[in-house]
Amino acid sequence: MSKDELVFLPLGGSGEIGMNMNLYGYGPASARKWIMIDCGVTFADLTTPGIDVITPDPGYILDMKEDLIGLFLTHAHEDHIGAVARLGPLLDCPVYATPFTAKLVEAKLEEADVAIDLHVVDMGARLKAGPFHLEYVTLTHSIPEPNAIAIRTALGNVLHTGDWKIDPEPSLGPPTDAARLSAFGEEGVHAIVCDSTNVLSPGVSGSEMRVQENLADLIAQQKKRVFVATFASNVGRVLSICRAAGAADRSVCLLGRSMLRIVAAAQAVDILPSDIEFVEPRDAGYLPKEHILYLCTGSQGEPRAALSRIARDDHPDIAIDEGDTVIFSSKVIPGNERDIYNLQNALVDLGAEIVTERDAFIHVSGHPNQDELRQMYEWARPRYAIPVHGEARHLERHAEFAKELGVEASISPRNGDLIRIAPGAIEAIDEVPAGRLYLDGKILAPQGDKGLRERKKLGWAGAAFVSIPMDARGRLAGDVDVRLLGAPQLDAGDGAFEDRLAEAVEEAVGDLPPGKRKDEAAIDIAATRALRNLTTEHWGKRPMVVVSVLWT
Amino acid sequence: MSKDELVFLPLGGSGEIGMNMNLYGYGPASARKWIMIDCGVTFADLTTPGIDVITPDPGYILDMKEDLIGLFLTHAHEDHIGAVARLGPLLDCPVYATPFTAKLVEAKLEEADVAIDLHVVDMGARLKAGPFHLEYVTLTHSIPEPNAIAIRTALGNVLHTGDWKIDPEPSLGPPTDAARLSAFGEEGVHAIVCDSTNVLSPGVSGSEMRVQENLADLIAQQKKRVFVATFASNVGRVLSICRAAGAADRSVCLLGRSMLRIVAAAQAVDILPSDIEFVEPRDAGYLPKEHILYLCTGSQGEPRAALSRIARDDHPDIAIDEGDTVIFSSKVIPGNERDIYNLQNALVDLGAEIVTERDAFIHVSGHPNQDELRQMYEWARPRYAIPVHGEARHLERHAEFAKELGVEASISPRNGDLIRIAPGAIEAIDEVPAGRLYLDGKILAPQGDKGLRERKKLGWAGAAFVSIPMDARGRLAGDVDVRLLGAPQLDAGDGAFEDRLAEAVEEAVGDLPPGKRKDEAAIDIAATRALRNLTTEHWGKRPMVVVSVLWT
Repeated sequence: MSKDELVFLPLGGSGEIGMNMNLYGYGPASARKWIMIDCGVTFADLTTPGIDVITPDPGYILDMKEDLIGLFLTHAHEDHIGAVARLGPLLDCPVYATPFTAKLVEAKLEEADVAIDLHVVDMGARLKAGPFHLEYVTLTHSIPEPNAIAIRTALGNVLHTGDWKIDPEPSLGPPTDAARLSAFGEEGVHAIVCDSTNVLSPGVSGSEMRVQENLADLIAQQKKRVFVATFASNVGRVLSICRAAGAADRSVCLLGRSMLRIVAAAQAVDILPSDIEFVEPRDAGYLPKEHILYLCTGSQGEPRAALSRIARDDHPDIAIDEGDTVIFSSKVIPGNERDIYNLQNALVDLGAEIVTERDAFIHVSGHPNQDELRQMYEWARPRYAIPVHGEARHLERHAEFAKELGVEASISPRNGDLIRIAPGAIEAIDEVPAGRLYLDGKILAPQGDKGLRERKKLGWAGAAFVSIPMDARGRLAGDVDVRLLGAPQLDAGDGAFEDRLAEAVEEAVGDLPPGKRKDEAAIDIAATRALRNLTTEHWGKRPMVVVSVLWT
Repeated sequence: MSKDELVFLPLGGSGEIGMNMNLYGYGPASARKWIMIDCGVTFADLTTPGIDVITPDPGYILDMKEDLIGLFLTHAHEDHIGAVARLGPLLDCPVYATPFTAKLVEAKLEEADVAIDLHVVDMGARLKAGPFHLEYVTLTHSIPEPNAIAIRTALGNVLHTGDWKIDPEPSLGPPTDAARLSAFGEEGVHAIVCDSTNVLSPGVSGSEMRVQENLADLIAQQKKRVFVATFASNVGRVLSICRAAGAADRSVCLLGRSMLRIVAAAQAVDILPSDIEFVEPRDAGYLPKEHILYLCTGSQGEPRAALSRIARDDHPDIAIDEGDTVIFSSKVIPGNERDIYNLQNALVDLGAEIVTERDAFIHVSGHPNQDELRQMYEWARPRYAIPVHGEARHLERHAEFAKELGVEASISPRNGDLIRIAPGAIEAIDEVPAGRLYLDGKILAPQGDKGLRERKKLGWAGAAFVSIPMDARGRLAGDVDVRLLGAPQLDAGDGAFEDRLAEAVEEAVGDLPPGKRKDEAAIDIAATRALRNLTTEHWGKRPMVVVSVLWT
């Protein structure tokens, strides 16, 4: 019988942005027990039309879900919890989260109308999960209650950092628990599995308290309405903005569904100070311009978010006037540039002044720059490093950087790489199936699904639908009908071009040798070819063609 | 009769990126003579699926093209000449360009197989065009032969800058002709119509010669293959890279169609020194790794460009190995981030080292930062400023900045704003139709075209085609056929769900009151509703539905 091993397996988040799903296994290869850390989504873009959200494909672990002991959530960002409501019922194991994270997961479960076995654990909690002993360690990040998980096993310890930075002065919540990290380092950390997001950035990411001071200065200077766009999940930032507003004698009005939802969750678990109050959008309209601050979602230019609606002058209660100021206390997430610039241009056209992190130090990242990584490695003193949470260029750089920081070896895995952590030196020992699932309407469709592939083709060149009525003797039994979807106006106005296509199809079918006229495949090929010849000539494109032969 | 006026009218490039099209008119409102400066495109993104290129809609000027005296091109970037081959034949006026620009326009005309009346003019040329006296003034930019156009009229002078920077040490071509600019300033400049691209950036944009030195240092350090990605049109950069390669004893191999095309054009007009030589890709493969440098297109992650093909290991002659270096001597154009990062990740996965402008000073912008704008305003001493070539946030900032630089007033127009430049103070006097044309296959489709709108819907939720054979008495004359395109696999496997949809349609048609069964519109509505009810229930989406009733 093979001997016990401790293994690590990322199914999401390694070699890509978002949708973290990390597995640890313990036992002999034939009978491992597993825990999962985080279960996130990534947001789709226009390269996958009709898809909102992408999740990791948990197929590998679903095949042995009786050996999955639990799912442990580090914090409440979508790329760590976003797939829990979708995949949790399939994983069918207990799920653990600290109070604020649990609150947000509960809201998702309610919305999806599903139930899972959710357990709320305290910050700093210690849990036993089969062969794994887990300890939540408090860190700092851009959301309340960020946790590393210190994993102890008989074969060695692992520090799974989750997402983190070292904020010496967070605006909300305790600072990084350096004492626990150092103690764990003393105890002996065999491997660190660590956030790679900002490894390309030197220095430190900066403190929320500096951001709060700068926001306070900036807001104090404004004479008219102030709008601040930020990430709703950054409750510390929300608090900073509320304090800055208070200092400038401005009431705060929250705008945006996720802003309301997250602030409510924070209040429910007593994270926000009780003296923080808000005014309703309807009432805010009655306040003098210099006494109101709107705190809103939509910093990424999301078309349905509050700020975009205001920029389109499409909000029931709120309008922007000449001299109002819109502060983007946020970063530009790669891929969102055009949406953000379009939003800012629309705001400028309404007469607003725009202030972004380019103009003032009003945003900090929640991930560790190089100096913070160095500090973490000094606390934990890991023997080996496994960079996760990043694209290839981040993981490879982190692997090098870890060696500069003194680890014996580092392996930067891609989703599906099975790494033996212990015993012995870390080593990639296998590759298992990993992939993505695309949420298409209500359906979780597999990677390479026909529907998405067809929609991309439809987006490029549309579709033609050809109905051909044939009688039993292989003669046309009526007029051919052609409908073209997604083509620009061609030739002599609407309809006329479709008539020409129908004529071409009739001719092509009529030209078939008599023996082929009862052969649907032959009719399909002839009709498709005739139609595409004409569209290529007049349009320069070849639409998808569906031929329906009706035998009458 | 109304008196003479000098007016400015941007039909493209003001309030957006790319596709510059600027008109100047002279005469009474009822009988103006016009000149056009530049005629560019902008590249489409996935928000307009199936569209490659977007041009300004020249409809306004086409309606009076007998009064359009000429089209004058400032330089050869696509956003200034890209629409000439498409729109030139419609505009039907002489076109003027300096030798290098003309060479590239000729290539486009040849490719499109169209002819226009193209005139090659010298750098510094003076031309008369009806009431306009034009002088080409040599500037510096990121392409050979960039020109401002000094426009003299009886009502006053205008400096139309085109795209420019102030490069004290260009790697190719003469420096900015400060003497002509100052002289024009002395003569009196009523208005400047000026590039706004970099107005948000303080300081200066930097010199190509510094870039050349840094590239030389960087390339000299490499031990294996070196790839440098840059914009092909930046012939000065191409020359810098060739010199750096020569100093490091590396032969240069050009990769990419536009690289070959533009270098050939530069050689044809004697812009590149005659000692610059290149090796063919096939021969390059035989050279030792330390003696080759590949100069390639694809810095923006364009999937069909040379570098992306190499990253996919899909190039007939060239592969990347561990330790090779890929230098991005280029910027990240907003909107291209994801494509570029995906490319860089793929290169990292092949073992390449990536160097970008983030790591070293190996790229400079071709547009003026604030200090360069200040210098230009000092030379030209314009009375009024008309910021163009930028999005709203750039134009508005430039309008303010121009006032800080001492102009009496500034107006930042949007496409279609007609500005009276003289006599008197500048003033927006009218708005004329302006818009975009989308190149859809071979068709230039108008904004809001049905084809594109339908393709977006198809991309989101696909389409269902329903064929219903009916007899003359309003009874089903055969089986209903339903084809669903762009849906994920639903229910019990391929085809089965389409059968269920067909049954639902049959039932819905059968349920119609007898009087409605010969009414195509009623059949269409009933069939569509029945089909969408089922797709909503099982898929959560409502595809486009086309119903074809065949009467037999």
